[in-house]
Amino acid sequence: MSADRENRQMKVGFIGLGSMGGAMAQNLLTAGHELTAYNRTRSAADPLQSAGARVVASPAEAAREAEVVVTMLANDTAVEAVIWGTEETPGVLSTLKPQAVHVSMSTISLALSQRLAEAHAAVGQVYLAAPVFGRPEAATAAKLWVVASGNSEAIDRCRPLFDAIGQGVFTVGEEPWAANVVKLSGNFLIASVLESLSEAFVLVQKSGVPPQQFLEIINTALFKSPLYQNYGTLIAEERYEPAGFKLKLGLKDVGLVLEAAEAVAVPMPVASLIRDHFLSAVAKGYGENDWAGLGRINAENAGLESLSGSSSSEYSSSVETSTQP
Amino acid sequence: MSADRENRQMKVGFIGLGSMGGAMAQNLLTAGHELTAYNRTRSAADPLQSAGARVVASPAEAAREAEVVVTMLANDTAVEAVIWGTEETPGVLSTLKPQAVHVSMSTISLALSQRLAEAHAAVGQVYLAAPVFGRPEAATAAKLWVVASGNSEAIDRCRPLFDAIGQGVFTVGEEPWAANVVKLSGNFLIASVLESLSEAFVLVQKSGVPPQQFLEIINTALFKSPLYQNYGTLIAEERYEPAGFKLKLGLKDVGLVLEAAEAVAVPMPVASLIRDHFLSAVAKGYGENDWAGLGRINAENAGLESLSGSSSSEYSSSVETSTQP
Amino acid sequence: MSADRENRQMKVGFIGLGSMGGAMAQNLLTAGHELTAYNRTRSAADPLQSAGARVVASPAEAAREAEVVVTMLANDTAVEAVIWGTEETPGVLSTLKPQAVHVSMSTISLALSQRLAEAHAAVGQVYLAAPVFGRPEAATAAKLWVVASGNSEAIDRCRPLFDAIGQGVFTVGEEPWAANVVKLSGNFLIASVLESLSEAFVLVQKSGVPPQQFLEIINTALFKSPLYQNYGTLIAEERYEPAGFKLKLGLKDVGLVLEAAEAVAVPMPVASLIRDHFLSAVAKGYGENDWAGLGRINAENAGLESLSGSSSSEYSSSVETSTQP
Amino acid sequence: MSADRENRQMKVGFIGLGSMGGAMAQNLLTAGHELTAYNRTRSAADPLQSAGARVVASPAEAAREAEVVVTMLANDTAVEAVIWGTEETPGVLSTLKPQAVHVSMSTISLALSQRLAEAHAAVGQVYLAAPVFGRPEAATAAKLWVVASGNSEAIDRCRPLFDAIGQGVFTVGEEPWAANVVKLSGNFLIASVLESLSEAFVLVQKSGVPPQQFLEIINTALFKSPLYQNYGTLIAEERYEPAGFKLKLGLKDVGLVLEAAEAVAVPMPVASLIRDHFLSAVAKGYGENDWAGLGRINAENAGLESLSGSSSSEYSSSVETSTQP
Repeated sequence: MSADRENRQMKVGFIGLGSMGGAMAQNLLTAGHELTAYNRTRSAADPLQSAGARVVASPAEAAREAEVVVTMLANDTAVEAVIWGTEETPGVLSTLKPQAVHVSMSTISLALSQRLAEAHAAVGQVYLAAPVFGRPEAATAAKLWVVASGNSEAIDRCRPLFDAIGQGVFTVGEEPWAANVVKLSGNFLIASVLESLSEAFVLVQKSGVPPQQFLEIINTALFKSPLYQNYGTLIAEERYEPAGFKLKLGLKDVGLVLEAAEAVAVPMPVASLIRDHFLSAVAKGYGENDWAGLGRINAENAGLESLSGSSSSEYSSSVETSTQP
Repeated sequence: MSADRENRQMKVGFIGLGSMGGAMAQNLLTAGHELTAYNRTRSAADPLQSAGARVVASPAEAAREAEVVVTMLANDTAVEAVIWGTEETPGVLSTLKPQAVHVSMSTISLALSQRLAEAHAAVGQVYLAAPVFGRPEAATAAKLWVVASGNSEAIDRCRPLFDAIGQGVFTVGEEPWAANVVKLSGNFLIASVLESLSEAFVLVQKSGVPPQQFLEIINTALFKSPLYQNYGTLIAEERYEPAGFKLKLGLKDVGLVLEAAEAVAVPMPVASLIRDHFLSAVAKGYGENDWAGLGRINAENAGLESLSGSSSSEYSSSVETSTQP
Repeated sequence: MSADRENRQMKVGFIGLGSMGGAMAQNLLTAGHELTAYNRTRSAADPLQSAGARVVASPAEAAREAEVVVTMLANDTAVEAVIWGTEETPGVLSTLKPQAVHVSMSTISLALSQRLAEAHAAVGQVYLAAPVFGRPEAATAAKLWVVASGNSEAIDRCRPLFDAIGQGVFTVGEEPWAANVVKLSGNFLIASVLESLSEAFVLVQKSGVPPQQFLEIINTALFKSPLYQNYGTLIAEERYEPAGFKLKLGLKDVGLVLEAAEAVAVPMPVASLIRDHFLSAVAKGYGENDWAGLGRINAENAGLESLSGSSSSEYSSSVETSTQP
Repeated sequence: MSADRENRQMKVGFIGLGSMGGAMAQNLLTAGHELTAYNRTRSAADPLQSAGARVVASPAEAAREAEVVVTMLANDTAVEAVIWGTEETPGVLSTLKPQAVHVSMSTISLALSQRLAEAHAAVGQVYLAAPVFGRPEAATAAKLWVVASGNSEAIDRCRPLFDAIGQGVFTVGEEPWAANVVKLSGNFLIASVLESLSEAFVLVQKSGVPPQQFLEIINTALFKSPLYQNYGTLIAEERYEPAGFKLKLGLKDVGLVLEAAEAVAVPMPVASLIRDHFLSAVAKGYGENDWAGLGRINAENAGLESLSGSSSSEYSSSVETSTQP
């Protein structure tokens, strides 16, 4: 990964100051970069202003003087709004200087990444996709992992920023969407762990083995993975609130995975199944839960009110009466 | 189908007098055949005795004088018990005469059908698989459809019996299990109608179109099938009790389908999915419902307490906050 | 259904003269209506011109004098192009008179149906969704079934047109999307028949029973449905070309079903599974096949080159060597 | 785990000398235990005989003098044959001394584990389930993990043996089947990793990102798991032969998982889906491949001849012609 870290200070526009973006922006300031920040809800920018950032009233203002504009937003719609602008707030495209770079770090669709690359190129600006892996704690600790795709010279220019927020950068080619498909596929793999752990936990629970003990065994003997430990504990202890990552966002992401897969004609049956379970969870009112709430769905589908609870019905395999369908 | 109906009276042993078997036995009597009947629970045989049947105390007695022994039982275990016998009740194999025929009309596994064929052949008896399509009303009206496989000469001998209980016979080859795979696959197709109708009903209901009206439209415009009409009405009206065919028996049958499919390496993803839904239904205590109770599972998975009920949660596709997994 | 057929002649604009639209437009002419027709590819309009229609060069021209404009197009994109117009061809919205009606008979998304309703209402025009069930033969024979939703007075005004092309009209409420969800759910049910028949056919074939015979049995004894007969025969005889309805259009429609279901938080696992199989078929180059080509996917997944072909490998359930994962 | 390791030498019967059992038996000898060994194929016992084991001609002989008999066999059938015996070879039950212990380390069904517990108890013998996690290399290195269930005093007695072959023991209660459900569920979790990694690999490959690079990223940033590294590399490099663990054994194990889950009414849709893919693989002749061969199935389902290969068909999302289903 990056060996040639440059400590040059850069002029950075930063758009999106949620739990991830706020921490990333703070780390850019700490590393000495000059920050102009925008957030739809103004108050979220206060801590950053105290720390030395200039806070502006539109994405266009955040971009005007920037060498690099970073976006870290919830979804495609939010990114579209700040780049193309809305009636109230002019967008990044209208003010970003030629050769300046838009680094999109949000988890967005491949289709939008492609459209952004084209829109920026059409006006002489540069587009990079650079989504990150890591939860808010990792963002705060500057321990994110960055996956970047796009023009390699532009990626090099942005390395000081990536170094300020993360512990490493992976570059995955020139195509704008390449980093996005990596990010989405990674999220799919996490979701598939949530789903399969849930199914196994319900089985062992109804067979008399506590899920916590089962988790300890399989993570000691098989996976040795902190991710299994962390998510497995959330499910085994049914700690679905507060959400680290909301289930409804998990639904959004698996939808983007399936959309990306449809574009290249790839069936992904586990992703389809997880989408169905996420939808069931949203239908039951669990959309604001952590996405580990898949455990709740699998418990309920097996007749359990909760993973540790008793069954609503005893299963009897006896079959007595015969009538014909 | 049968053109050469013979009206010759036959000596028939009949084992299994449930809602299907009782009606079939009655029709054999009505057609003039000489009936010796056995049922585990003696009282179920009373109406038949009044109608002229001889009622005996063991499967072996039912078989002793018979040209043909018919079994119509709930499952593999019940058939095994009457054929091989138990400590209390000697079985058919021990008394059936050489060249006499065992006609197995129950819905059983291909593996058991094969074992029965071998066991009877080993002692000079003949085995036919002849499961039937039709519900108890059809059995009463002598309107069943018989699917027969095995030795063709033996099938011909049994035609007077098939004609007495049904409206037609399909013969599907010499292999003992061939008729069973047809019966099980037919039941799989019905279950897949229950599943897909349920899914569609939940979608239209939550979109504002009453399932009953949707059913009328698609059965008028597309399917024109009494089976869709009957089962669709059960689901649309949520009439899951009393069960015409119990959900737990549906689970048993789809299990036999998957077992048959595994033996010839055929993946059947719809069957797998239906099995999962049946299991969920049994886990929730709906095993005694009609197998149309798949409708209940699909309604609950979409957050509905009942198909006609309102959702337990309103879906909002808005996605606001971004945190990272 | 419609009893009060009025034979009043109407001024009709008709947009989209494919195998369905061409036949429907012809029947409107035959019934005495005055037709102004538009098709992107001009030559497709020739037969209609010979039959008395006026052929114009843009959707806007087709709409200018019309009491009712009918659209019958391939997908959302095509409908959007003719209604909102493109650079080359001005759209229906720009010329349709106040109170005149746009009847959208294409199979489109619920979301587009809603947007169309709003766009027409905003300029004082009326929007109806009225998709149809029936294949091109039924269109030619004026035997389609129409499912209509929207303003009931407007539906009444359009009845003479519906009567000219079909054998009946179902009205499903005022919401613009209601008819679309019925149409899409109907298509989902057909696709689920294709999928489950395919699975069953592969099972019986590998178990020694010809699919054709199996189809005859289950359609005689269970379904009694011409739709099962027609589609079942296509699959059993592997007649996937020429396509009556292309597999890639089936993929599009099941995608719209899943989109509609997501909007109201309904998991539809059979639809998800069918989408995966359609995607696999498109990936393998079968997108131009009839959508009954699901049979090909299920045969290949079971190791068969074709449904009637022999397996590429014999299954042996024997398991000899043990090593550990 | 075991703190009170006793170094007492024990008299051990060992049955089943495959790649796992052979290595385990060798480690028991090395630790100083007295070994009497049996293997159906005599020649597999030669290395052990050279190392000091007594080799006998039947399971009954292996058990006669033993304090503990270990079985390490391929499947239920093999275990049944050595415990109950066959016509040729008398079984363990007939000779094992009262209070002596049968330790079943094979991956078997919960149902068989329960039957074994009852059969041994009936004649005053003791039964323990103690399946192991670890591949043959771990068996050779005495680095297995043992999961034990049954009488706790008997487990304590067997600790010297567990210590000789593994690096730790987990005890999961008194119920005989508890250890088996843990082992099977662990194997299910590995299979679900194989499946979801395969799906993701196909997606990134068709989107232009090499699976090897994707694997490096997600295992650095997310999983940090040697198991993901090892299996991911097998799939990314398509190294399906020679098999570390045969796909057909994976099919067997996921079948046992589903059987265990059915007994307690737990739907496991990911397990069902994996079973379908394993079946497809067996049908296509890949049963002797490593179970990572799920990668091959997912590649083929997406139209790829191999994961690194090009697609057999380019996907075009354009949809032109409309006809009606």
